[in-house]
Amino acid sequence: MGDAPDMGTRVLPSLAPALNLARGSAKNPTLPWAPFAGVLGYLRRMSYAALEAHHRTVFQLRHAEAMLGWDEATMMPAGAGPARAEALATLRGLIHERATAPELQELFAAAEAETGLEPWQAANLREMKRAWLRETSIPRDLVEAASRAESHSEQAWRVLRAANDWRSFRPLLETVVSLKRETAQALSERLGLSPYDALLDGYEPGARTAAIAPLFDELRAALPPLIERILDKQRGEAVIVPPGPFPVEQQRWLGMDLMRRVGFDWTRGRLDVSHHPFCGGVPTDVRITTRYDETDFQTALMGVMHETGHAKYEQNLPQAFLDQPVGSARGMSLHESQSLLQEMQICRSREFIELLAPLLEQAFPQAVAREPQAFTPENLYRFATRVKKDFIRVDADEATYPCHVLLRFEIESALIEGKLRVDDIPEVWDEKMQELLGLSTRGNDRDGCMQDVHWAAGLFGYFPTYTLGALTAAQLFHALGQALPGVRDDVRRGEFDAINGWLREHVWSVGSLLDTPELVRRATGKELGTEAFFAHLSRRYLE
Amino acid sequence: MGDAPDMGTRVLPSLAPALNLARGSAKNPTLPWAPFAGVLGYLRRMSYAALEAHHRTVFQLRHAEAMLGWDEATMMPAGAGPARAEALATLRGLIHERATAPELQELFAAAEAETGLEPWQAANLREMKRAWLRETSIPRDLVEAASRAESHSEQAWRVLRAANDWRSFRPLLETVVSLKRETAQALSERLGLSPYDALLDGYEPGARTAAIAPLFDELRAALPPLIERILDKQRGEAVIVPPGPFPVEQQRWLGMDLMRRVGFDWTRGRLDVSHHPFCGGVPTDVRITTRYDETDFQTALMGVMHETGHAKYEQNLPQAFLDQPVGSARGMSLHESQSLLQEMQICRSREFIELLAPLLEQAFPQAVAREPQAFTPENLYRFATRVKKDFIRVDADEATYPCHVLLRFEIESALIEGKLRVDDIPEVWDEKMQELLGLSTRGNDRDGCMQDVHWAAGLFGYFPTYTLGALTAAQLFHALGQALPGVRDDVRRGEFDAINGWLREHVWSVGSLLDTPELVRRATGKELGTEAFFAHLSRRYLE
Repeated sequence: MGDAPDMGTRVLPSLAPALNLARGSAKNPTLPWAPFAGVLGYLRRMSYAALEAHHRTVFQLRHAEAMLGWDEATMMPAGAGPARAEALATLRGLIHERATAPELQELFAAAEAETGLEPWQAANLREMKRAWLRETSIPRDLVEAASRAESHSEQAWRVLRAANDWRSFRPLLETVVSLKRETAQALSERLGLSPYDALLDGYEPGARTAAIAPLFDELRAALPPLIERILDKQRGEAVIVPPGPFPVEQQRWLGMDLMRRVGFDWTRGRLDVSHHPFCGGVPTDVRITTRYDETDFQTALMGVMHETGHAKYEQNLPQAFLDQPVGSARGMSLHESQSLLQEMQICRSREFIELLAPLLEQAFPQAVAREPQAFTPENLYRFATRVKKDFIRVDADEATYPCHVLLRFEIESALIEGKLRVDDIPEVWDEKMQELLGLSTRGNDRDGCMQDVHWAAGLFGYFPTYTLGALTAAQLFHALGQALPGVRDDVRRGEFDAINGWLREHVWSVGSLLDTPELVRRATGKELGTEAFFAHLSRRYLE
Repeated sequence: MGDAPDMGTRVLPSLAPALNLARGSAKNPTLPWAPFAGVLGYLRRMSYAALEAHHRTVFQLRHAEAMLGWDEATMMPAGAGPARAEALATLRGLIHERATAPELQELFAAAEAETGLEPWQAANLREMKRAWLRETSIPRDLVEAASRAESHSEQAWRVLRAANDWRSFRPLLETVVSLKRETAQALSERLGLSPYDALLDGYEPGARTAAIAPLFDELRAALPPLIERILDKQRGEAVIVPPGPFPVEQQRWLGMDLMRRVGFDWTRGRLDVSHHPFCGGVPTDVRITTRYDETDFQTALMGVMHETGHAKYEQNLPQAFLDQPVGSARGMSLHESQSLLQEMQICRSREFIELLAPLLEQAFPQAVAREPQAFTPENLYRFATRVKKDFIRVDADEATYPCHVLLRFEIESALIEGKLRVDDIPEVWDEKMQELLGLSTRGNDRDGCMQDVHWAAGLFGYFPTYTLGALTAAQLFHALGQALPGVRDDVRRGEFDAINGWLREHVWSVGSLLDTPELVRRATGKELGTEAFFAHLSRRYLE
């Protein structure tokens, strides 16, 4: 899984374990594995405590899963794949079995009847039950059929996309969509949500189409003309592409230095190389990755900053609940808001580029000496904020990116609601790309509806979180700027303590105590909207 | 764990999993986790098959354990330790619970009554039962008490050894020994072996004091005078210590090249750096480690060859049974025989040094240019075969090494049999060191009885396997040389296919089909003895 630089195993860390009990709690794990008769004992004691112990075990198994996944992407030799797949399948089966254990139902009932739970415990119980309800809503047969179809279609996609072969891919995707609709229906009945919202809620608890659609309508109306104005303005601004080579070792060193400066905790994380960059591991040991290109320093550098945004969120989750659901990162859009706040709001700002310019000179003295004009702050800023209408989502700048998400959201929600057939996707895709970005993908499905792994892998409901994340990042950074008026000077001086302190208080340390809309409301004083995002785009691209 | 370069997590891979069933067997893991009622179903079907499925699951969990252990030693950042310890404890608890599941008893009884098992299956059943008998022989309370005492004493040892503080270490070791004697007693009653043999059998199935003691007596009688003769001879032979610096990158590159040349499969393994070198991972993905010193190329290079010997054994285990006990490496002495055969028999031979000399010149042109006389094959060979009577086992050459093992064997067997008190160790140690190597350790326990982690960590019965491994390596290499008369020319030319082919046939592919004495008998035509070892020492050090 994980085609795009902005996904990958990111789902894992938000579920990850860890508790700083060095010794003595080795006995804990045995509690939930006791024969079922033991459950009665828990009931007589404290059901909430038993649920905590149960989830601690599950999270420790997820720790193993996260590390094996990271290892597979970064370290594992090629021939070790099949045995690793077996080991991971066993581990996942075991985790699933524990997460859906029949005795949980009674434990939930008893725990909900208990009095005296603290707010964090009550929220933890709610999150446990939320996950359990989802996990147990889908019949086992359907889980397995969907998993097989998705594996099959994802593997085929890798070949068929390269061959631009929609005709062969279509029937595989039809099977995936059909099983995903069944899944959404099963979730819908249990959760009392519409089928598409039931999927959406799996990636971002509390997200609802009714709240998202109006925001996306605003983007859809305003972005195309705004993009034209930006392009008009940028046409008059020359950019010199900084010429390499940029030695990998120096890129790596600079990235690690910047990670430290912006607040990555090097005692609890690593930076490595993988084909598809991701943020994995566990909150006590966050593993981010990148990949280097000696002709271009910016992609890896901004990618590292993006993943560092994810990593800082993980590293600053509530320490007392790291092995419990309530201590996990909230949802994908909030996670993405943290990476985009780091990358887009901070690291592509004029102030950060001013901080960066002399560091680039230290890291790449030969390249700078060769073409000093390319490394002035003004040119670097133009280079970091260039806007271009293009086909590929993962390569898009922040102004055009939402257009890529809008069309996917419209198509995938219609597919799940049964209002669109898989067969119609290429035509609708082409139509919408023309409307939004003036580009035709007719006959070019490779760069059109086949460019992403998401649908092939059954990830419906995931795309909107990218743009919700961008809106949230802008709104959070605006609120942060109002609370800390000196924030832009801080960035220029490389001082991130105040920024990190605000984010820690309002986002990171909140874990999953609140749902996302409520967290955003409390942190920014209002509902999520498009205002801050548009203000950000105007300020950066039109002033 | 793992103080010495020659131990560490080596125990893990021999228990490791892996089966090349890419898809479809994701269902297998669910079998043994079915509620207990399901066991009756197995009984009605096929108990042996159920046991195989059960062990496959256990081995896949051990895969996770092995990889987390490797990661901890090579990759994990410092602050991630406590959470990792918790995750590992949970995983180990789960593995232990499965390995001792009560339903296994009935499954064994039913499987043993089944007819038509192939020889490999019958051996697999025997090995399953062997491990299960050991695991279930020791009361759970005792396992936990011993584990706590060993953790405590091992942690204290790290500090107390550095401080040369026997007085504080003694009571901790007394507790460890006392619990280990209880453990040995429990095993003894169940297995029908003497208490010390019951421990020994855990590291090397089939090894018995009655067979070992006469061999060790021969070593004890012959080695001290032999060492004197070697030292006399070497006194007349000047050695130039090759001067560095030897850049780490070049050492690494040379080590990887030699690994490839001697037959390490790079598609199924890695080389990394750790504080204590070890061979870990799983047979499909063997992870060896080393550590580099820029002033000395030989320690890392020979260490890498040593671990490569372990790795080749793991990589060539019987592929059809990699996730079953019978497909695992036999015991510690056979494992050590493979590392010593690679390092001592092959890589420190005159022929290998002749192969190595030009490669060193390519890897370290500046060092060689500075002092060419140090890099002649003759000088390099003398440097690789220097004998010295010294205090520290892990730094010992192959001639004095058995002396270090003999005294430990004599002391630890007496401790377990109750014939020696912990309080008496320093005095007895000093006495035996004087007899064997003419060195006194009085008042220097740091370099005497406190130098190894083994006893602190409860590893009684482990030491003899080092010297049994050395004897076995010599005897196997002698037999190999009789079957392949051109073996020394092969080494000189860097051709290892015939050598590896012989080892694959007679050792590696045998897995745990035979017990060690029988495997050695079939491979070499006789019982394990000291003859080949002495012949090897005479040839290398006295001719």
